[in-house]
Amino acid sequence: RARLRLLVDSSGFQRFIIAVILINAVTLGLETSEALISRYGTVLHTIDRLALAIFVGELLLRLHAFGRDFFRDPWNCFDAAIVSLALLPTSGSFAVLRALRILRALRLLSMVKSMRRVVSALLTAIPGMASIAALLALVIYVGGVMATKLYGELSPEYFGDLGDSLFTLFQVMTGEAWSDVARPIMDQEPWAWLFFVGFILITSFTVLNLFIAVGVSAMEH
Amino acid sequence: RARLRLLVDSSGFQRFIIAVILINAVTLGLETSEALISRYGTVLHTIDRLALAIFVGELLLRLHAFGRDFFRDPWNCFDAAIVSLALLPTSGSFAVLRALRILRALRLLSMVKSMRRVVSALLTAIPGMASIAALLALVIYVGGVMATKLYGELSPEYFGDLGDSLFTLFQVMTGEAWSDVARPIMDQEPWAWLFFVGFILITSFTVLNLFIAVGVSAMEH
Amino acid sequence: RARLRLLVDSSGFQRFIIAVILINAVTLGLETSEALISRYGTVLHTIDRLALAIFVGELLLRLHAFGRDFFRDPWNCFDAAIVSLALLPTSGSFAVLRALRILRALRLLSMVKSMRRVVSALLTAIPGMASIAALLALVIYVGGVMATKLYGELSPEYFGDLGDSLFTLFQVMTGEAWSDVARPIMDQEPWAWLFFVGFILITSFTVLNLFIAVGVSAMEH
Amino acid sequence: RARLRLLVDSSGFQRFIIAVILINAVTLGLETSEALISRYGTVLHTIDRLALAIFVGELLLRLHAFGRDFFRDPWNCFDAAIVSLALLPTSGSFAVLRALRILRALRLLSMVKSMRRVVSALLTAIPGMASIAALLALVIYVGGVMATKLYGELSPEYFGDLGDSLFTLFQVMTGEAWSDVARPIMDQEPWAWLFFVGFILITSFTVLNLFIAVGVSAMEH
Ligand code: NA
Ligand code: NA
Repeated sequence: RARLRLLVDSSGFQRFIIAVILINAVTLGLETSEALISRYGTVLHTIDRLALAIFVGELLLRLHAFGRDFFRDPWNCFDAAIVSLALLPTSGSFAVLRALRILRALRLLSMVKSMRRVVSALLTAIPGMASIAALLALVIYVGGVMATKLYGELSPEYFGDLGDSLFTLFQVMTGEAWSDVARPIMDQEPWAWLFFVGFILITSFTVLNLFIAVGVSAMEH
Repeated sequence: RARLRLLVDSSGFQRFIIAVILINAVTLGLETSEALISRYGTVLHTIDRLALAIFVGELLLRLHAFGRDFFRDPWNCFDAAIVSLALLPTSGSFAVLRALRILRALRLLSMVKSMRRVVSALLTAIPGMASIAALLALVIYVGGVMATKLYGELSPEYFGDLGDSLFTLFQVMTGEAWSDVARPIMDQEPWAWLFFVGFILITSFTVLNLFIAVGVSAMEH
Repeated sequence: RARLRLLVDSSGFQRFIIAVILINAVTLGLETSEALISRYGTVLHTIDRLALAIFVGELLLRLHAFGRDFFRDPWNCFDAAIVSLALLPTSGSFAVLRALRILRALRLLSMVKSMRRVVSALLTAIPGMASIAALLALVIYVGGVMATKLYGELSPEYFGDLGDSLFTLFQVMTGEAWSDVARPIMDQEPWAWLFFVGFILITSFTVLNLFIAVGVSAMEH
Repeated sequence: RARLRLLVDSSGFQRFIIAVILINAVTLGLETSEALISRYGTVLHTIDRLALAIFVGELLLRLHAFGRDFFRDPWNCFDAAIVSLALLPTSGSFAVLRALRILRALRLLSMVKSMRRVVSALLTAIPGMASIAALLALVIYVGGVMATKLYGELSPEYFGDLGDSLFTLFQVMTGEAWSDVARPIMDQEPWAWLFFVGFILITSFTVLNLFIAVGVSAMEH
């Protein structure tokens, strides 16, 4: 076991896995081209299966080497989850699960040390954001219910039901084409500007504070 | 009275109120769907009235428990204002006031402690922003009067009257579709780019300073 | 003279001038409405002329009180410039100069102390920005010349001449509808994405550093 | 040689070169106008060639003065690269290389000291950004492969092949017209909002951290 650990943690082994991840990411990228599939389809699929086999083997090795401790490291769970995605059957809702195979490229995040450090640093910012993000979600929910009630009939495309409204308000929050949403409604309901301007001011202010929270947390670390 | 205070401040009581707020927020969300209303309309309305009754009762309890001190806490005023919204008649301008019932979900801000803290923190940034925000409002007002005079006839949709111009300049300030506003005017008045580029530079610079003021105030606290 | 200075600097006198500025700003706003002009035109114009007379009188008083020192204070120059704008003839290019009368509302910036402080603070950030702003201007100029040469024939609307290109690249830099500019060109010149993505990355990075320079300068003060 | 170095580093010589760069930048700008070319074409071309000759002469002087040390200074390499661009043949893919002549204006960055300092400062931020930028590139690549697989047939304009998808996702990341991309897809695949909202949240968060990294690096220097 101790030997297995040394092997699994050796830089040679890790470099090999990183190389496989990169090659697999490239072949999955090439597989998006039907011209390439019709020509090199079998080669690409073989490389993909081989890469998957290597990942499964690697995880089994690591599982064997670390035993129960394996699942204590969240990065291992991440790797295991991504690899097992590829083992699910892809017959029924075929396309979606096949499309998720490229998520394996995210294994770079756990295998490359500088990436691992960056992702860890990003994740430390999340607890400090949680309350403000919850506030933002509440504002969007309240705005969504209001907008569906007030503008659902006027503008069914954008505010037809609660789901539409939540998506539209997310869009408005990102500043994307919000005048296309607001102006047609304002033609009928002149006071609608209050809703939109208010919503934009409140969400911008909240998002700004979300960003500041992330910035402050980054500076502390 | 002292007992009443203990009751009202007990975590059990507060959790109960938070649960009622959450349930009420969900039922108000479900009420946006006409399909659900036609099926479960009576259930949803009953829950809504029940929740309202609970909120009124809770506020009366708190009012009784704290007497005059009740209104010293701005959060209590906030709660009272939101709940009393629902007691206004909803016959005339029916839809609007009914749509505001969802504002009750904002009571989460006063009842959940971490939310209360976040909102308080956000509010402390406002005094530091006031002068810059006033400057921004002045710039938009001056720009609005100028644009109405200069481009009101050329582009009545955007600058037809002062209200239109203020809204359009707010839109331009958010960077939303500003070239759709500016380009048709520039076809007629080639120097109009000066107005728009100048307005965008000045407002961006001011908004940036607004954001910095918020950031600095956040770091001091 | 000393008495005159005391008068001119007295808070009563200043509050009176601020009130006149505010009233004048409101009447100039009302003058944007033709309905109001046709009804109350004479009243509004009288107030406007009266306000102008008061401003001229005030400046003459201050000029007399402070003598040569008057022009040493840049705020006085600012006030004098804005007020003398209104004294220029408005016959030839009538509309433009009349539209500039509302700039008088900016005198609030010099008269209200908290505004004066904010504007001074904003201005202190400008020297620190100068080099980065010059860099940005250089990047836009170089990009503009290149784009006119490369895409001027393909997309005359956006890159027809150097002026068009500079405006379009300013627009692209603000992130406004840049895909509407880039996609039609990319249909003809597949490598054009390099120009646009490169331009956006470089200008965003430079603008970000401009913002950071302002932020750092704000924190130092 | 020592004399030559003194000459080349003298402020008079440098001011002369800066003047030539500026004049050349202006003439290259004027050359974008066909009206001006048809009138002053020969003058403009002569100035351009003269400027190029001066730059070549200057570089040869500096090369001679500093010998091998010349290429140790990355700014010299930058100058040499930009000037030699102009010496490449411009017959085949004519327009593109001619359009790159304006890059010579970027020599201002190396010749003007305040510019040189700003650019150096900007460049020091890049190593600190590298890991987060790599993470961002990985997220866009993974998103691009997924989107091509999932939405390539539905929306061939935006996600037809991997190149299209990467460009579209860059566009979505800048917040440009992303609802025009997402809404038509969501009409067919209601769950597509998950992909777009998720992509926007993840990339915004990552870009924010990229910006913070630049800000922190700027504050340290
Ligand atoms: Na935008
Ligand atoms: Na847009």
